[in-house]
Amino acid sequence: MRVLEERIREEGLILSETVLKVDSFLNHQVDTELALQIGQEFKTVFGHLPVTKILTVEASGIQFAMAAGIALGVPFIYAKKKKAVTLSEGVYSAPVHSFTRQEDYVISISQKYLGPEDKVLIVDDFLATGAALVGLADIVEESGAQLLGVGCVIEKSFQEGRSLLEKRGIPVHALARISSMAPGEVHFIANEEQIKESAGC
Amino acid sequence: MRVLEERIREEGLILSETVLKVDSFLNHQVDTELALQIGQEFKTVFGHLPVTKILTVEASGIQFAMAAGIALGVPFIYAKKKKAVTLSEGVYSAPVHSFTRQEDYVISISQKYLGPEDKVLIVDDFLATGAALVGLADIVEESGAQLLGVGCVIEKSFQEGRSLLEKRGIPVHALARISSMAPGEVHFIANEEQIKESAGC
Repeated sequence: MRVLEERIREEGLILSETVLKVDSFLNHQVDTELALQIGQEFKTVFGHLPVTKILTVEASGIQFAMAAGIALGVPFIYAKKKKAVTLSEGVYSAPVHSFTRQEDYVISISQKYLGPEDKVLIVDDFLATGAALVGLADIVEESGAQLLGVGCVIEKSFQEGRSLLEKRGIPVHALARISSMAPGEVHFIANEEQIKESAGC
Repeated sequence: MRVLEERIREEGLILSETVLKVDSFLNHQVDTELALQIGQEFKTVFGHLPVTKILTVEASGIQFAMAAGIALGVPFIYAKKKKAVTLSEGVYSAPVHSFTRQEDYVISISQKYLGPEDKVLIVDDFLATGAALVGLADIVEESGAQLLGVGCVIEKSFQEGRSLLEKRGIPVHALARISSMAPGEVHFIANEEQIKESAGC
């Protein structure tokens, strides 16, 4: 998605070879117009599938789940994040290890809102180590719903998230795929390649 | 907002005289169509004001800040919530006491995204004790921006949030104002009264 790559080049703050901040337009201050375009792009990629619900995790996935929900005309659910202490009843839950913050937490969603009749698209802002997304995929599996795909806004292709998901047979699509970065420069996987790779989705 | 009151009557779970769960359509599973209508309603109320930014707090304010941002054609910012430990640099922050969870936390936003040139509308899902909203109002004041109003989806009118804000001269508007509730029943402040009361906004 060219407009997204341009914004990342212009406004992204690359703090190291693995840390990219996009909080001027994606996940602290949010450009609502761009978020809507991102939702439309998810529709272009996944709109032919019979999605009944979007699933994401609080907080920074919410604006993109909402944008995808608007574009696809379906509701979304955001999983709640809690410190790993006691499990509540009536929820599907999965443990997640955050590599960025070096902490463990549990994500959960109410069993009332997801079941075998649902066909789910998972949406999130970043695909990096894949920890939270694998947790969401586990939750979908536990609920008996069908997981149709994972859509992410930005992928750090040099981390293992995509391969963890694809190993499970989950179609993955990211709107901007970063192959490498360093302070002052960011490289994307070219669009042609991106289209070819995601043609199976 | 009649459609909202109807949904609260139909789907709201009233667990006590102060606790209302609306997680089937507002703040866990989200009805994106209703969220967009809520954004339009905020536009009807605040659209004549020169709002430059919407401000909310993660996580459950995000979908309504986004809806308001879409309707008003402006970006939104969501304040981050952290355990009250150390303060980071470069942020505006305010301490908040959560009465529901009986814990203290700090909300903060980057100083890069709010300044004296901004005219702010604060949006959130609930107005009850007003703790988080007062914290957001403090942040707006600290930034030098102008606070044009506070818009909430649901108000528990029997709690002190509104008066805390109005004492500071802040116009407050809630789309559904609950005067009292108990398991199995919920009472709203009538629409005429609501319009009259908010005519000064």
